[in-house]
Amino acid sequence: MKAASPLAGLLTGEQKLIDSIKSWVGGNLIGDDCALIASQMLVSTDALVEGVHFRRDLMTLEQIGWKAVAVNLSDIAAMAGRPRYLFVTVCAPAEFSHTDFRSLYQGITDCARQYRVTVAGGDITASEKLMLSLTVIGDVHENGCLTRAGAKPGDVVVATGDFGASRAGLSRLLCGETSRQGHALERHIRPVPRLSESWTLVSKTGSLGALMDASDGFADAILQIARASSVGLMIELGSIPIHEETRKIAAEAGVDPIEWALYGGEDYELVGCIDANVWGEWRKEGSKNNPFVPVGIVTDGDSIAMTRHGAAAPALDMTRCFQHRPVTK
Amino acid sequence: MKAASPLAGLLTGEQKLIDSIKSWVGGNLIGDDCALIASQMLVSTDALVEGVHFRRDLMTLEQIGWKAVAVNLSDIAAMAGRPRYLFVTVCAPAEFSHTDFRSLYQGITDCARQYRVTVAGGDITASEKLMLSLTVIGDVHENGCLTRAGAKPGDVVVATGDFGASRAGLSRLLCGETSRQGHALERHIRPVPRLSESWTLVSKTGSLGALMDASDGFADAILQIARASSVGLMIELGSIPIHEETRKIAAEAGVDPIEWALYGGEDYELVGCIDANVWGEWRKEGSKNNPFVPVGIVTDGDSIAMTRHGAAAPALDMTRCFQHRPVTK
Repeated sequence: MKAASPLAGLLTGEQKLIDSIKSWVGGNLIGDDCALIASQMLVSTDALVEGVHFRRDLMTLEQIGWKAVAVNLSDIAAMAGRPRYLFVTVCAPAEFSHTDFRSLYQGITDCARQYRVTVAGGDITASEKLMLSLTVIGDVHENGCLTRAGAKPGDVVVATGDFGASRAGLSRLLCGETSRQGHALERHIRPVPRLSESWTLVSKTGSLGALMDASDGFADAILQIARASSVGLMIELGSIPIHEETRKIAAEAGVDPIEWALYGGEDYELVGCIDANVWGEWRKEGSKNNPFVPVGIVTDGDSIAMTRHGAAAPALDMTRCFQHRPVTK
Repeated sequence: MKAASPLAGLLTGEQKLIDSIKSWVGGNLIGDDCALIASQMLVSTDALVEGVHFRRDLMTLEQIGWKAVAVNLSDIAAMAGRPRYLFVTVCAPAEFSHTDFRSLYQGITDCARQYRVTVAGGDITASEKLMLSLTVIGDVHENGCLTRAGAKPGDVVVATGDFGASRAGLSRLLCGETSRQGHALERHIRPVPRLSESWTLVSKTGSLGALMDASDGFADAILQIARASSVGLMIELGSIPIHEETRKIAAEAGVDPIEWALYGGEDYELVGCIDANVWGEWRKEGSKNNPFVPVGIVTDGDSIAMTRHGAAAPALDMTRCFQHRPVTK
């Protein structure tokens, strides 16, 4: 058991491929949740593929449409921006009917309206499996923009909401759960982009600090921040919020719920690093308007150390992360 | 034989689906080659699906990468804009190797560099078939922006380059042509976005006139302009430029080359409408710096009439158009 994990050893195949692509295309715009382009707009693109990101026997088309938009908006929240325009490409199989398109766009439009985003274009084409590719364009928040690269030693690591619930919901679905009730199922099917939470944070900190969304799990989020900021991290696993229902479902499945929190992914919560003094002042105001809880501290160095209720915990194992494509040959 | 075709009767299933989507999502941003958003940037998104838009036995990954970028940039040319940033999503099958990614990105990067566009982000994920989804962001040209809606009766209909060549090249490829030489194959495999031509036009006309790219064939282009501008058109088929090699390949295949020009698609030439006085002045300067040729006139009314060497020609038949998805049920 190692209590600290050098960053270089934690890279997944997907991460290595992204690094290669960065070197191939040149420039320095790739690598955060959105690209921060010269005119200061935020742009992010996400693909959802049937059989990889969703199964049509587990979710309705309306739910798939909602989720596709929500996860795209979550990337804007990850940089504390305001989403404005959405571009939706649908690749649909030949048997996809007009009614199917209607249902899919119902979910897309519901989510877009909820967060005041305008669907401004897209493309439709044939494919064997249903595939959605979404691009969102957002404004930078007037108080600044938070990237993955802004963490500095001494910062407090903070997170919103709770972790592992989406994976617990998936577990329920895979067990044939037909009811759509409950926190875990709701979180898996209808994730919430943490936009207002990100605006609360950037209003407190300006551009000081780091932020990203935990789309691929808490472990991936802290690793990306550590890499981009060239810092180490010390995380107290006991402080990572886990919902009661997630613990219950994990217990039934014989799984340690921290496993789902770290590696399950699709929670779309925010993980950030905030200056200790700013955090201290904010805490004095009480927790009423503070959606974040502290889960660790930023350290010097280049490794991630973890404790659980104060005792050294097993090192991160990024092979357990949810990955949307296998390691390339 | 009908010499004139009411616009409403010419809509394809794809066009009807796009109309439905416009009504579902609301707003008025959808329907041109790009979305013209409030901050005056141009955004367009395009998907290319293996087995629908390309076959890997007919094109190399480098060629697929080039073409994916070129057709995306062509949408910016269609509104006379300047492409700036490109977002590339690759959905690749599990057996897609690192070398395969390298080749694909070689083509993507070559085309992006050629037209001074920066690859600024994207997404990679698994899928059964190779699928590319690209989003391009461009600036509006300082002289204005040309849309499909700007044609008015009396305008001259103009076009760049030549039509039907891409379809001729595909015909060669499908016959097992292994050589990559010749105009038709080149046009199919390595299309050229008509950016400089569009800038020449907008420098002459400002925002006065109409423009689009003929990605789905000459017939689709004129139909879209007529619909968006609420005008009729009179087209002289004999004036549509067709390359000598296209005529030769069509003759060998026993096809009327005008068929490929009208319905073959993938030529990515520009089709526009220009004020008759502006056109008259431009013509006086000679053809040296004028990449456009006249192919018809804009009329009052709501139908498209066609002549061939002065005699009435068969009406447009949009069921012959290349469509990337079948009519929905």
